[in-house]
Amino acid sequence: MKLLEDRILSDGKVLPGGILKVDNFLNHQIDTALLYEMAQELHHLFGDEGVTKVLTIEASGIAIAAVTGYVFGCPLVFAKKSKTKNISDNVYSAQVESFTHGNTNTVLVSKDYLNSGDRVLIVDDFLATGAALVGLKSLCEQAGATVVGAGIAIEKVFQGGGDALRAQGLRVESLARIASMSDDSLVFC
Amino acid sequence: MKLLEDRILSDGKVLPGGILKVDNFLNHQIDTALLYEMAQELHHLFGDEGVTKVLTIEASGIAIAAVTGYVFGCPLVFAKKSKTKNISDNVYSAQVESFTHGNTNTVLVSKDYLNSGDRVLIVDDFLATGAALVGLKSLCEQAGATVVGAGIAIEKVFQGGGDALRAQGLRVESLARIASMSDDSLVFC
Repeated sequence: MKLLEDRILSDGKVLPGGILKVDNFLNHQIDTALLYEMAQELHHLFGDEGVTKVLTIEASGIAIAAVTGYVFGCPLVFAKKSKTKNISDNVYSAQVESFTHGNTNTVLVSKDYLNSGDRVLIVDDFLATGAALVGLKSLCEQAGATVVGAGIAIEKVFQGGGDALRAQGLRVESLARIASMSDDSLVFC
Repeated sequence: MKLLEDRILSDGKVLPGGILKVDNFLNHQIDTALLYEMAQELHHLFGDEGVTKVLTIEASGIAIAAVTGYVFGCPLVFAKKSKTKNISDNVYSAQVESFTHGNTNTVLVSKDYLNSGDRVLIVDDFLATGAALVGLKSLCEQAGATVVGAGIAIEKVFQGGGDALRAQGLRVESLARIASMSDDSLVFC
């Protein structure tokens, strides 16, 4: 999606350690008009899939997922992070390691909000190692729901998570796909 | 806002300890069409205020704030929660006590994303003791930004936070205002 790629080139910053900082338009200050354009593009890609729910993970995925849910005309469910391992019986849970924060969270969704009749589009702002996506997919599988695919804003292709999931048969569509990046260059696929 | 009041009456649950559980349509599974209607109502109330930014706090405020930002045609900024007291120089910070979770978080906004030219609409899903609002207002004041008001989905008026802030001159508009609630009744103002 050229609009997003151009924005990454103009406003993104590459930090040491493979971090792409886009917090001036995507995950701290958020350009809501861009969110809407991205949601429209995801609808163009997944609009025929009979999506019944958009699923994301707190916190930075919620904004794009909320607007995507609105465009799809379906509810958003966001998985909650929990530090505790004491979780109630009424949730599906998965372990998710955070590349950015260097920690592991238990992510939870109430059993009331994912079920076997659901056709779920997973939405997130970033895809790197794929840990969040694997966790969200697991929550859907525990519920017996169908995952129609994943719609991602920015995929760091060189970290391999997206292609590993594609190899397992998951449809992953990323609006900007970064092949490589360093302090002075950023190359899209 | 009758649409929201009706939804609270049909789908909300009052739990012991003054908790109103609305996580089937507002803060775990989220009705995105309702989000849009609430955002439109906030625009009806604050549309003449020259809002340049919508400010909320992670995580459950982000969905309504994202759609509100879209309707207002302005960016969303969300304050991040941090457990650490070691914070960088480039942020505004405030302490916020959580009524629901019984803990205190440091909330942060990068100095890059709030400034003295901003006219800020604070948006959140709940207003109870007002702790989150006080913290968000403080972030704006540190930046020299103007707070045009606060747009809230559900105010628990009996907890006093909203009226205390109104008494200090803040314009607080809540789409549903709960005067009292108990296991078998819920009364709107």
